[in-house]
Amino acid sequence: MSLAYETDTITAIATPIGEGGISVIRLSGPRAIDIAARGFRGKHPLTGAQTQTAHLGTLVDDQGRVIDQVVILIFRNPQSYTGEDVVEISCHGGMYVTRQILETTILHGARPAQPGEFTKRAFLNGKIDLVQAEAIADLIHARSETAHRSSLRQLQGDLSGRIASLQDQLMDTIGLIELELDFAEDGYEFVDKERVGGQIDDAIAYISELLSSYQVGKIFREGVKTVLVGAPNVGKSSILNALLQEDRAIVTDVPGTTRDVIEEAVAIGGVLFTLTDTAGLRKTEDPVEKEGVKRTDKKVESSDLILLVLDLSRSLSASEHASTADLINKVGLNKARCIVVANKKDLVNGSAKNIIMQTEFLKPFPKIQISAKTHEGLQDLRLLMLSSVFGDARFNQESSLVVTNSRHFAALLKTKESLEKSKETLREKKSGEFIAVDLRAALDFLGEIGGIKTTDDILNRVFSTFCIGK
Amino acid sequence: MSLAYETDTITAIATPIGEGGISVIRLSGPRAIDIAARGFRGKHPLTGAQTQTAHLGTLVDDQGRVIDQVVILIFRNPQSYTGEDVVEISCHGGMYVTRQILETTILHGARPAQPGEFTKRAFLNGKIDLVQAEAIADLIHARSETAHRSSLRQLQGDLSGRIASLQDQLMDTIGLIELELDFAEDGYEFVDKERVGGQIDDAIAYISELLSSYQVGKIFREGVKTVLVGAPNVGKSSILNALLQEDRAIVTDVPGTTRDVIEEAVAIGGVLFTLTDTAGLRKTEDPVEKEGVKRTDKKVESSDLILLVLDLSRSLSASEHASTADLINKVGLNKARCIVVANKKDLVNGSAKNIIMQTEFLKPFPKIQISAKTHEGLQDLRLLMLSSVFGDARFNQESSLVVTNSRHFAALLKTKESLEKSKETLREKKSGEFIAVDLRAALDFLGEIGGIKTTDDILNRVFSTFCIGK
Repeated sequence: MSLAYETDTITAIATPIGEGGISVIRLSGPRAIDIAARGFRGKHPLTGAQTQTAHLGTLVDDQGRVIDQVVILIFRNPQSYTGEDVVEISCHGGMYVTRQILETTILHGARPAQPGEFTKRAFLNGKIDLVQAEAIADLIHARSETAHRSSLRQLQGDLSGRIASLQDQLMDTIGLIELELDFAEDGYEFVDKERVGGQIDDAIAYISELLSSYQVGKIFREGVKTVLVGAPNVGKSSILNALLQEDRAIVTDVPGTTRDVIEEAVAIGGVLFTLTDTAGLRKTEDPVEKEGVKRTDKKVESSDLILLVLDLSRSLSASEHASTADLINKVGLNKARCIVVANKKDLVNGSAKNIIMQTEFLKPFPKIQISAKTHEGLQDLRLLMLSSVFGDARFNQESSLVVTNSRHFAALLKTKESLEKSKETLREKKSGEFIAVDLRAALDFLGEIGGIKTTDDILNRVFSTFCIGK
Repeated sequence: MSLAYETDTITAIATPIGEGGISVIRLSGPRAIDIAARGFRGKHPLTGAQTQTAHLGTLVDDQGRVIDQVVILIFRNPQSYTGEDVVEISCHGGMYVTRQILETTILHGARPAQPGEFTKRAFLNGKIDLVQAEAIADLIHARSETAHRSSLRQLQGDLSGRIASLQDQLMDTIGLIELELDFAEDGYEFVDKERVGGQIDDAIAYISELLSSYQVGKIFREGVKTVLVGAPNVGKSSILNALLQEDRAIVTDVPGTTRDVIEEAVAIGGVLFTLTDTAGLRKTEDPVEKEGVKRTDKKVESSDLILLVLDLSRSLSASEHASTADLINKVGLNKARCIVVANKKDLVNGSAKNIIMQTEFLKPFPKIQISAKTHEGLQDLRLLMLSSVFGDARFNQESSLVVTNSRHFAALLKTKESLEKSKETLREKKSGEFIAVDLRAALDFLGEIGGIKTTDDILNRVFSTFCIGK
């Protein structure tokens, strides 16, 4: 981790790819301003431009032919995203134009950036730590309020701050132990072992709390994988459409968004639910249909939440009964992961108790009667979906810090293990040296999170998930 | 057309929709800076910011919760794209974040912009004329060098300049005629009718030249609609893939581009060719297949260029012979629109003359032997495709001005008609008044092009084709 770690200048299209009013090509590195200046024809030369100023002009290719009218934005080192000289070229947002400008910057000496390389440079130049770098990627991918909030808090340094104070506490504890070691030969033993043990216990308790937040954090970040299963014609896709119809605006009602690219998704109470329809559930000997059933099983297994859809207007056929029971057995459904959704309420007498609601093997699951057609009960279904996922854990979205990232989770887990080992060593009344070794290991694992202690391997893994231009 | 025509402030996402490193939300109008300032927390307040300066800070929503770290760019009226106060908010390029910021600007008093409304304001505030406004949309949609070059030239005012000088000339001619009218009662007749006629002829000749450039201009702008037809298994899709394989990089090798969104397209000699494969050509009585044939016929009819693909390694079957002859008859193929592509050259003895190449009804068409497998002859096919479209018209792409827009073409056509009418009136030796009326009509049609004389209807039609945020 050193300043000016990289000496070449990188370039990439920083805006999403497609057609729009504006596209931005971003350059970072010692020659960024020089390279942009080569193709720029404006009132004043770019080379003398002050930081954070915008310059209108035309950009020409290496043969002097105009590519576009542009606005060029100058950020001088260190007042920039990466900490290096950064230039942002705003052009008319066409793919051809944008690409031409990118190519011209390459012809003038810039290198195409790797995914995440701008952010990597920001990290390497000490502008942000690794948690913040990851938060930027999460922020970009966020599709719901909770995903957005949790990534933003990490970007603002909430998790990093907690980790830092944990590190401080551990350093204090280690200092105490090592001080004693210096005087060990003299037979002094002035460290209060109970105090050290208490400090370690506090750290373990706090880390356990962070670890337990991961289930929720993962949902914040990735959404709730929800599948709809049920016999043919019970109204699975009507329910899916009813949920989407009212909510799609929140997630995907942006011009240019195609439904091919992202899954069907709705935000319920700020939480993203990705919805997948499945082939109708049925017992079959037909090999093609069997393949479909197998695929449904797979989706059910990897899901977070299952909406088991039944038709309230009729009783289960023998085959439906069998295949539904089969499904429940096979995936070992538990209460928390499944909701029985009895559809077509509009077709039955409101007060009549339906046989389906009393079916024995459906008893353990929360049930709800709805009509996808009239949208009756839809709001209650949403609330039930939320509470099924979060249970009674009434966390405060605004104030609770949650761990959302599997890398952080793994590092915290290893930290906790090392701390527990140090507790064990302490209990065994071994020499302070051994306790210190365990605590230092814990400290290293904590350091991995923010990137103080890190390897190229970790860095590459983190930044390779980024998009190009970030 | 008046300055400060609009009094409200508009907002839109200006960058393409999707995930990327940066997204930009653009505001324009009297309250643009004020609205952005409301959510901005930075070192200095935005309200006092100078034009063309960039400001780093955080953006908060209407409840004071941070949405993102942003860079805000200020352009003060009239030094901006629209001529009004313009603010560009650069945020982390996620869809959720971008949308949140858009919504916050709306909550703070901005109105969602209509498609093309920023450019419309630039036009209404006299920053650009209508041809330039259209050129911006064309520039964004440009997918080839010729599309890019021709839109850029119009953006830089080439066509507008020519139209303006035509208008000047016509005004001179009208002035001459009207001056005479003032003295008509005195019996003076000092206008040289031949000179007036000559001036009109010159204008007609120049407009005719512009009109004749439209065929080429349309191709520059929209590309050459090319269909591949032929019997099953002659290698149509192999040819398509071979052309795409080598050239796709030019047009679509941009991360994030999906092939669903844009057609298969290649740039050949800077010209875009959109390629469509068709169902195999065959005589059939099967209703489903008949439908396929019908669809092929339709594609062939609406195409600019047909690649009629045959298998060089075998002779035509009777059915192939019939269906191919049928196709040629049906669409009345002419030499300029069809190339016979004899594929699978790798399977035949290089020197052997093949029967197919001598088939009588294929005689009128240019023929080429290729191998989609080895890519032999592919480059010659490309050159033949180019020359088939452009014929012997060796224009200079860099210097020739071409009309690319159907609106311009229509207005020029009407201008020409009015001029011809004035010539007729002149020939009939009618009073100068009548000639002047015709010339003024011509002038009005010319004025439509740049938007001097224009209607809300024309404006709406022009700007509704834009993307939002432009």
